[in-house]
Amino acid sequence: MQRFVNDPDHVVEDLLAGYVKAHPETAISTRNPRVLALADPVPGKVGLVTGGGSGHEPAFLGYVGPGLLDAAAVGEVFASPPAKVFYDAFVEADQGAGVACLFGNYAGDNMNVKMAVDMAEDDGIVVKYVVATDDLASAPADAVSRRHGIAGGFFMWKIAGAAAAEGADLDRVVAVAQDVVDRTRSLCVGLEPLTIPAVGQPGFSITPGTMEVGIGHHGENGIRTETYTSAADAAAIIVEAVLQDFAFSGPRRLAVMVSGLGATPAMEPYIVYGAVASELEAHGHAIVESYVGDFVTSLDMNGVSVSVIDLDENLHRLLKAPGRAVGLPTY
Amino acid sequence: MQRFVNDPDHVVEDLLAGYVKAHPETAISTRNPRVLALADPVPGKVGLVTGGGSGHEPAFLGYVGPGLLDAAAVGEVFASPPAKVFYDAFVEADQGAGVACLFGNYAGDNMNVKMAVDMAEDDGIVVKYVVATDDLASAPADAVSRRHGIAGGFFMWKIAGAAAAEGADLDRVVAVAQDVVDRTRSLCVGLEPLTIPAVGQPGFSITPGTMEVGIGHHGENGIRTETYTSAADAAAIIVEAVLQDFAFSGPRRLAVMVSGLGATPAMEPYIVYGAVASELEAHGHAIVESYVGDFVTSLDMNGVSVSVIDLDENLHRLLKAPGRAVGLPTY
Repeated sequence: MQRFVNDPDHVVEDLLAGYVKAHPETAISTRNPRVLALADPVPGKVGLVTGGGSGHEPAFLGYVGPGLLDAAAVGEVFASPPAKVFYDAFVEADQGAGVACLFGNYAGDNMNVKMAVDMAEDDGIVVKYVVATDDLASAPADAVSRRHGIAGGFFMWKIAGAAAAEGADLDRVVAVAQDVVDRTRSLCVGLEPLTIPAVGQPGFSITPGTMEVGIGHHGENGIRTETYTSAADAAAIIVEAVLQDFAFSGPRRLAVMVSGLGATPAMEPYIVYGAVASELEAHGHAIVESYVGDFVTSLDMNGVSVSVIDLDENLHRLLKAPGRAVGLPTY
Repeated sequence: MQRFVNDPDHVVEDLLAGYVKAHPETAISTRNPRVLALADPVPGKVGLVTGGGSGHEPAFLGYVGPGLLDAAAVGEVFASPPAKVFYDAFVEADQGAGVACLFGNYAGDNMNVKMAVDMAEDDGIVVKYVVATDDLASAPADAVSRRHGIAGGFFMWKIAGAAAAEGADLDRVVAVAQDVVDRTRSLCVGLEPLTIPAVGQPGFSITPGTMEVGIGHHGENGIRTETYTSAADAAAIIVEAVLQDFAFSGPRRLAVMVSGLGATPAMEPYIVYGAVASELEAHGHAIVESYVGDFVTSLDMNGVSVSVIDLDENLHRLLKAPGRAVGLPTY
């Protein structure tokens, strides 16, 4: 597949250069060319940082904005930013009230964040972290700490970002973020695999008439292959898995996100959403907020992720609190 | 390519069903299942309507929202809505101050809008219309009235929507919309063609190493095929064509939109934007607002459109006025 890139080995530089030109309320840190930060930080506020590999746009940099995150550590395509990049993001985000690093659970990110936290502590910057583990396909329910973070991270960034914006201290921000993580589940299905620009071909193939359930965000195939007949079938499989994992004891108030994975035409997440919503409502749950579009992607993968969060009143209020960021819709 | 659809002949019904479930501030009209309208219209305001074929999401329905449009006439994939659908959208949008229909210049839409305007007049509803003609590839500069409307319609909907929201009368709204049209140019390039779900295969192919310049939004190939080497080359060709068509006499204050066309990975419009912005700035122009993402798409086309508007102070103010819609970002 042909791509709008210049040099496949320099897509991240070109992405960042275009991004900060388009969004001057963000800037590349003068201390590190792989740190994107708010141009005007808020003095005294807990700083919020995320980070991870590129190729998931608008994540991660697209969630830096007023009312959301203060800085992002930007890695190469599908590669964790080195510890020094996270560290420099912490330094950018720190406004004297400590830093919360809210990232997705992957081995590289875990290792680099922990090293960066130690580096920051040596400099007197307090950093606490919360690890998103919403991808229920990536480990069983009795091993949640091994699960990866995918599009459900949106809820963590938005809700914890709103808590920090209204003045919560570091411990409170971290507690809110962890509460969001505990209340969020996601699952992906893929209809076509992705291609990393510098590799030039997909790592596996998907046979027409089948879908990969639980497909990963870095070119990994799913945890199982199922017959694919329609968006509604895919939605039913996803909702069944999500509800089984939540094991709710009664009706809940949910927010639901359906994200395209990069090459999914804009019409299709809505078709999936319609079926997901009908399934959830048939189980007695109320959907109080919906997000449909491209929120966390995987280069040119043709697939969707569905993320569900079990809201309480306060989390719902924080989810709807004002904010501005590339990944945050106006509706 | 596999798709997240249920029945290829019923994608529009399924899209609309999912859409209104996700966005309860909009509703399907009780008088016509192909009219999407604001659930709570604003009494006394000039009503704004658009419409067109489906497959361009978030256009057209995604621009119905407070501060933007009041209703959209929704057609089949790449097919104009019948006159009756436009008419019913006018009826939904009319709040006693008349209706402005702001749509893209295509033969079917033109014919159906004009019939619908006559039908509305018979009922005492005053409807005026403005036709977007931003696609400079679709006819030469001395035949602007034959040019098609593409992603530049965003500027018309947002700016005229803001004028209506602040109380402008019908003549003023129409004048503002026409001013926007006169000041907007767009051009697309395609790297891979699209596939209509009910057809199942592309209507032409693009040879690797080439791009289609001026590709249409309905599976039409471009006006010329050029060697494709990089995003920067594509940007240079686009900017040259746009600036030649504008024929500015001096530096201008521009808003720029780079829209992915459906299957374009989210990273890539930013890479194109960076090169477009550099080219425009090298010509002495200032970019005062930027929009990068999926704004007007063409099913699963792998391509980008670049739209440029030459702003004055009032148009800039209206562009930044508050509004909420699926296609309107928070930044």
